[in-house]
Amino acid sequence: MAKKDIFNVPSLGECKIDSPLKMSSETGDLIVNYVNDNETILYNIDGKITEKETLESREKLMKAGPRKQIYFNPKHVHAGIVTCGGLCPGLNNVIRAIVRCLWYSYGVRRITGIKNGYKGFLPEYGYEPIELSPDIVDDIHKLGGTELGSARGGGDKVTEIVDSIERLNLNMLFTIGGDGTLRGARDIAEEIKKRGLNISIIGIPKTIDNDISFLEKSFGFETAVAKASEVVAAAHTEAHSVHNGIGLVKVMGRESGFIASHTAIAVHEANFVLIPEVKFDIHGENGLLEHLKARLKRRQHAVIIVAEGAGQGYLEAKNKETDASGNKKLQDVGIFLKEEISDYFKKEKMEVNIKYIDPSYIVRSAPADATDSFYCSRLGAHAVHAAMAGKTSTLISYLNNHYIYIPIDVAVSKRNYVDPEGNLWRDVLEATQQPFSMTNN
Amino acid sequence: MAKKDIFNVPSLGECKIDSPLKMSSETGDLIVNYVNDNETILYNIDGKITEKETLESREKLMKAGPRKQIYFNPKHVHAGIVTCGGLCPGLNNVIRAIVRCLWYSYGVRRITGIKNGYKGFLPEYGYEPIELSPDIVDDIHKLGGTELGSARGGGDKVTEIVDSIERLNLNMLFTIGGDGTLRGARDIAEEIKKRGLNISIIGIPKTIDNDISFLEKSFGFETAVAKASEVVAAAHTEAHSVHNGIGLVKVMGRESGFIASHTAIAVHEANFVLIPEVKFDIHGENGLLEHLKARLKRRQHAVIIVAEGAGQGYLEAKNKETDASGNKKLQDVGIFLKEEISDYFKKEKMEVNIKYIDPSYIVRSAPADATDSFYCSRLGAHAVHAAMAGKTSTLISYLNNHYIYIPIDVAVSKRNYVDPEGNLWRDVLEATQQPFSMTNN
Amino acid sequence: MAKKDIFNVPSLGECKIDSPLKMSSETGDLIVNYVNDNETILYNIDGKITEKETLESREKLMKAGPRKQIYFNPKHVHAGIVTCGGLCPGLNNVIRAIVRCLWYSYGVRRITGIKNGYKGFLPEYGYEPIELSPDIVDDIHKLGGTELGSARGGGDKVTEIVDSIERLNLNMLFTIGGDGTLRGARDIAEEIKKRGLNISIIGIPKTIDNDISFLEKSFGFETAVAKASEVVAAAHTEAHSVHNGIGLVKVMGRESGFIASHTAIAVHEANFVLIPEVKFDIHGENGLLEHLKARLKRRQHAVIIVAEGAGQGYLEAKNKETDASGNKKLQDVGIFLKEEISDYFKKEKMEVNIKYIDPSYIVRSAPADATDSFYCSRLGAHAVHAAMAGKTSTLISYLNNHYIYIPIDVAVSKRNYVDPEGNLWRDVLEATQQPFSMTNN
Amino acid sequence: MAKKDIFNVPSLGECKIDSPLKMSSETGDLIVNYVNDNETILYNIDGKITEKETLESREKLMKAGPRKQIYFNPKHVHAGIVTCGGLCPGLNNVIRAIVRCLWYSYGVRRITGIKNGYKGFLPEYGYEPIELSPDIVDDIHKLGGTELGSARGGGDKVTEIVDSIERLNLNMLFTIGGDGTLRGARDIAEEIKKRGLNISIIGIPKTIDNDISFLEKSFGFETAVAKASEVVAAAHTEAHSVHNGIGLVKVMGRESGFIASHTAIAVHEANFVLIPEVKFDIHGENGLLEHLKARLKRRQHAVIIVAEGAGQGYLEAKNKETDASGNKKLQDVGIFLKEEISDYFKKEKMEVNIKYIDPSYIVRSAPADATDSFYCSRLGAHAVHAAMAGKTSTLISYLNNHYIYIPIDVAVSKRNYVDPEGNLWRDVLEATQQPFSMTNN
Repeated sequence: MAKKDIFNVPSLGECKIDSPLKMSSETGDLIVNYVNDNETILYNIDGKITEKETLESREKLMKAGPRKQIYFNPKHVHAGIVTCGGLCPGLNNVIRAIVRCLWYSYGVRRITGIKNGYKGFLPEYGYEPIELSPDIVDDIHKLGGTELGSARGGGDKVTEIVDSIERLNLNMLFTIGGDGTLRGARDIAEEIKKRGLNISIIGIPKTIDNDISFLEKSFGFETAVAKASEVVAAAHTEAHSVHNGIGLVKVMGRESGFIASHTAIAVHEANFVLIPEVKFDIHGENGLLEHLKARLKRRQHAVIIVAEGAGQGYLEAKNKETDASGNKKLQDVGIFLKEEISDYFKKEKMEVNIKYIDPSYIVRSAPADATDSFYCSRLGAHAVHAAMAGKTSTLISYLNNHYIYIPIDVAVSKRNYVDPEGNLWRDVLEATQQPFSMTNN
Repeated sequence: MAKKDIFNVPSLGECKIDSPLKMSSETGDLIVNYVNDNETILYNIDGKITEKETLESREKLMKAGPRKQIYFNPKHVHAGIVTCGGLCPGLNNVIRAIVRCLWYSYGVRRITGIKNGYKGFLPEYGYEPIELSPDIVDDIHKLGGTELGSARGGGDKVTEIVDSIERLNLNMLFTIGGDGTLRGARDIAEEIKKRGLNISIIGIPKTIDNDISFLEKSFGFETAVAKASEVVAAAHTEAHSVHNGIGLVKVMGRESGFIASHTAIAVHEANFVLIPEVKFDIHGENGLLEHLKARLKRRQHAVIIVAEGAGQGYLEAKNKETDASGNKKLQDVGIFLKEEISDYFKKEKMEVNIKYIDPSYIVRSAPADATDSFYCSRLGAHAVHAAMAGKTSTLISYLNNHYIYIPIDVAVSKRNYVDPEGNLWRDVLEATQQPFSMTNN
Repeated sequence: MAKKDIFNVPSLGECKIDSPLKMSSETGDLIVNYVNDNETILYNIDGKITEKETLESREKLMKAGPRKQIYFNPKHVHAGIVTCGGLCPGLNNVIRAIVRCLWYSYGVRRITGIKNGYKGFLPEYGYEPIELSPDIVDDIHKLGGTELGSARGGGDKVTEIVDSIERLNLNMLFTIGGDGTLRGARDIAEEIKKRGLNISIIGIPKTIDNDISFLEKSFGFETAVAKASEVVAAAHTEAHSVHNGIGLVKVMGRESGFIASHTAIAVHEANFVLIPEVKFDIHGENGLLEHLKARLKRRQHAVIIVAEGAGQGYLEAKNKETDASGNKKLQDVGIFLKEEISDYFKKEKMEVNIKYIDPSYIVRSAPADATDSFYCSRLGAHAVHAAMAGKTSTLISYLNNHYIYIPIDVAVSKRNYVDPEGNLWRDVLEATQQPFSMTNN
Repeated sequence: MAKKDIFNVPSLGECKIDSPLKMSSETGDLIVNYVNDNETILYNIDGKITEKETLESREKLMKAGPRKQIYFNPKHVHAGIVTCGGLCPGLNNVIRAIVRCLWYSYGVRRITGIKNGYKGFLPEYGYEPIELSPDIVDDIHKLGGTELGSARGGGDKVTEIVDSIERLNLNMLFTIGGDGTLRGARDIAEEIKKRGLNISIIGIPKTIDNDISFLEKSFGFETAVAKASEVVAAAHTEAHSVHNGIGLVKVMGRESGFIASHTAIAVHEANFVLIPEVKFDIHGENGLLEHLKARLKRRQHAVIIVAEGAGQGYLEAKNKETDASGNKKLQDVGIFLKEEISDYFKKEKMEVNIKYIDPSYIVRSAPADATDSFYCSRLGAHAVHAAMAGKTSTLISYLNNHYIYIPIDVAVSKRNYVDPEGNLWRDVLEATQQPFSMTNN
């Protein structure tokens, strides 16, 4: 991607209206400051400098925050909020923060919640939007889930959605969702541009898997790790309380093993972590099962964390094999592994006791913990500042310890992965004492 | 401070021994990699470039991690660990991580825990050191506090401490503590150097107030905010359940209002936050009490968070006034405020109901939550890698999203503060809706 | 008290209306059954039978539950709910249960919440009552405190209260409160009777101290013990992490040491428990301080739980001594003890480290845990069944494993105490290993 | 069962040794009292007296507690502890309480933990018993599971077990387990009697399902309900956050619906509760599915709690049908229901979103909460008092608000069920608003 892609946060136009926030533009007056579009941080902060590289040649990321001049007159603003995709801790916190910042900081009085994801824009579903205000959202951060309801899909019906946005007379829309949702938001913004409308589309990235690029940490991730850690502790208790007990926990992570990796380091009680980014063999002398057997011989119990996207090669192979009988269950790597382990030890004539736990819904639906609650508040407020300043097709992100604005287009251009050679995975290996590699060749 | 101060991590000498970790130095072989001393990140990541500034002219921070060549032969290592100062969530996690990394990754078998802070080195106290091993520390991360015991002071008796280190025959010492402890560690390292000894002194920064510079976030901080948030929620419940209820919570923060600020944003229920960095008046038309009265008139309840170091100007004045009677209680800003508020509303003939909570011990002694547990594990492991590679007088830190090594001397050269004009305080003001300034002129 | 006092639950008159609950009066039809006034349990269940005693001679307690015939026509019911006195976990759960049972089970549609205790009835305060419905109370059980607000006092203004009840046109009132509140409820019921009105007054006993007689366990008590246990664990961590650390925790219990006793047994980490029912000396060779010193010599740390009503003899004496200087702080047994301990060890030239925690507000304001949530639901429903059946001046209680109805007059006739010779205190002594007696003669 | 069965707690013989506990036998001396075998409570406390019934004719239950005279000389005691069957919160608390009471109160110094249930007695497994002391068990109550390990089965090998008990030279054995375990304990006690040995066998009833008769509440039950409540709250969040969301939670309860019933009342968010004791139809106009559809039409989300033993009639039928293909998964009522619901709404062409959660391992492995921790401490201590006084084949129980001793034989003679016509189920129906009956005829 070109450097300017990062820098050039799309905008609806010039900001000519004085912000009602009454902050300061001066340093030293002890009044909190506005942020201006020229304030940036470096994207690449590597201390290693390639030949001819200069500071100017490194991409910059625009700092988020309230602008002194804004694009929209708060009195004329009608804001919409929509939550899409699977649940994630903190959704309600973000909704609440957006509503409160619009209402209290800018004085916006028309805020509408779109029900059940993008489908809430589509007339065929008949979902009625709801009015939002600080009173209505006052306590929702104490609950998990989303008060607006969520749903997958619908984001491809861009024309209908923009029609609906026009009918509702929205001039800003906050979309909270993952990769697909954000692509939808970008497409909506493009359609809006095509129609010559002045509507700001702002994305707040939601991915419990933490796999969105250009985002240091997704909201809800810390809560997810905390909940997953509780479950791994339970699995450890089960495994530890019987002879040759095996606790097997499946955690979220379709393409990225961040939850699995963080949980393993946080909870200290896992012996094997399997993630999509690191290939492993199940059978063979350097495969998982042999190492598991050795661990049981040594300690009489073991705990395995498997990310849902790990070992998909096995599942695809297996799926083909069983195409005729159509056993859909085997697409679940947790159940697959449970059966492989069980079969193996039966053959080995070694009595083991497997306890398999799939805590996904418990993890997803948890209310945000304090760390995430703090984070969501600030993401929500920064989203409002972006919209009020006329940014559009823009994502609120957090990178290199700063809140930033980044074009959605850039953010969805690639995913975030655990580097199998990097320091996170290294610390997982140290925490678990599992072999550096569990492949046979 | 000069740039080289940051870069030049002190070292005992050349690393000539192959690390037993069997990692890789190549990229692309899918084996986790060693880190070498040339790997750095930029300290200043501001995108704004001053004239003539180049990438080369910006200070670099050395990346933490295991080195391919190490200084100490693991078989000859005798490591010591000491925890100093007040309690902080995660102390046991750090101890555990150090012991496990030494034992499992490097094969070190002699690890000694020094009891009760630096005093454990001083013969006059007669505290016996204890032997540590993975079995002994296996479950300590589930408990708050420190299994080694802690104490304040003693760090100025450098000669005696180094004598004691020599007697114990330690060749590496991990000191976990705050500003004062780290200064002590630096002085110990200097004395060691003077004596021509090859002993590595590594500091792991502990400050529940998050006020150590060159450190993005101190361990235990997230847990502290989470616990403080629970207490502010309790104060809100108390305030909300009576007419004109006022919940007043004192949180830690002698010189920095980080816990107060994070808690206010995380918990959403505070109306006034008072921190050391931001001056405020209690009386007068723009003082706290007038704003508090207005809030009560409007909503019939209010919640105040005060950092322990806030408003010290008042306490000093008050202290002078009452020197004769020697009322020590007034040095506590929480109790002082409670009485000021109470007196004021008595004069105003407005019945209020104040509930004052000081949760400090509950916050300090909490076991680390998952976020901090993860963080402590990694800090501890990085400390071991530093010591094994012969770094000394070195702090393990986390900055710009990377674990780094930094000379202790640099880290203790200044403190970390909430910027009254910066974005954290701005988001506090938005969350609380308190006035930008509560001073009368 | 005479047997009939227990049995004779006051009633407004004959029940002539068919309950809308459509339950069954037959056993064996697999439909849940109504309860009738003849269903009772024994109050005294001692197996030891005194001479001439017969089953008939033992007092009976009327079982709570829905009656087949009820007194009020649900369509004409206007119910009021009031919460009085200090906070207690579960208040909102009881409010919610009453509203839901009235609304869903009986079809009552007029339910009014009185604000801020009995004061909400008194015109001089000007508190507006609020309308209640299942929607309004749907999530309140997730919050601590009381959504109606609470206040102490006002219950003696019986005439004004009944005037107000008449003005509001209530025909049933649910009062949730402690001893004083219940006496108020009884007096209100008497005044109502005097005026010849048909208004049911039902009490739900609230006492976080668990000191109401004829009540096996008060709601919120389990949550209070759980929260107090967390705090004692924190005090233990503090004490255990320093040399000669002393953790001192004050828990609620003005006249009864139930929270202190249950917490000590639940948490296993207290070494001394001081309660109002058991006399103790502070000084002298068999006093607390000597035993504390011995404990520290043995184990280097100690934890003390003190109920707020313990040692009041000392405070009274002390108060007299210091009358001139008027040091009000000493009425707090926690602070008093802290100072006594501190002074003693200074004299003994033994360095100790005291951490005093007073968690009262944190305990009181906690949301009900699952055990209490279950209990509150059932208390609330039983209260509604009582009112609908025309009971009045009646308390909902739980005794000998059954929900019962009992005249308020009987219930407030004496308090509930920890028996210093009984099995609860015995198990405290076993758990703490403290001396059977800490008095000098 | 005959009255004497309840009363006649089996005993090894006369107690001739003075207890070392130094308690009192007098009332009024303010010293805690011993309990003697004549202290009883009534078993049947119904206030309704049948003709000719007298107080004497009602069965009595012997009060638990320390006896003034004991059977065993503490110096000669070698005690064994064994935990059997599935995990349950509080196992470690009971182990800890037994060890501490033996050690500190009676001065017993030989305590042995049998590993992995009754199998630990059987030589073929080769499990080594472990030595226990207060130091070893000091912190185990903070962990779930059992430090001794547990296993099912082995209890029928009575001869081998008693051989092993003799070899170990135990003179008292504490067996913590469910129905089957207790039958085993009774058989072991009989074999011991046959051999003329003086070994006390004491049972502590463990049943997370709460289905042991003559026991008001089993230990771990409150914790189980609390954990299950969290999961039902998660299911509710999931259901509530999508259109036509259905949360389906399977809880433990093979033959009794206590956990399901208590959870439904505690958590307030279930709409349907299915338990083994109450027959229901899935299909048909009064079946579950029709009511579920109606609920969704009305509120767009629903939560179902199903006890694992509910609807077994369906599973048996289904199992027969599918015998050929041998689909074992269908024996799980949760998965069965999930599929039935899914199929039904497909046919109805109504899009629903089912989230099925099976939290069994998370519930079982939780550490005991404060309520259970308190209860386990006291059960453990009472078990020790029973053994020291030479009781045998005796269960420690809690009934009518008292700790009691009861012959194991009596306790295992029948199970405990939710009465479909009783007040617990009635309150479930009120909480859920589900129909009184969901059968078609």
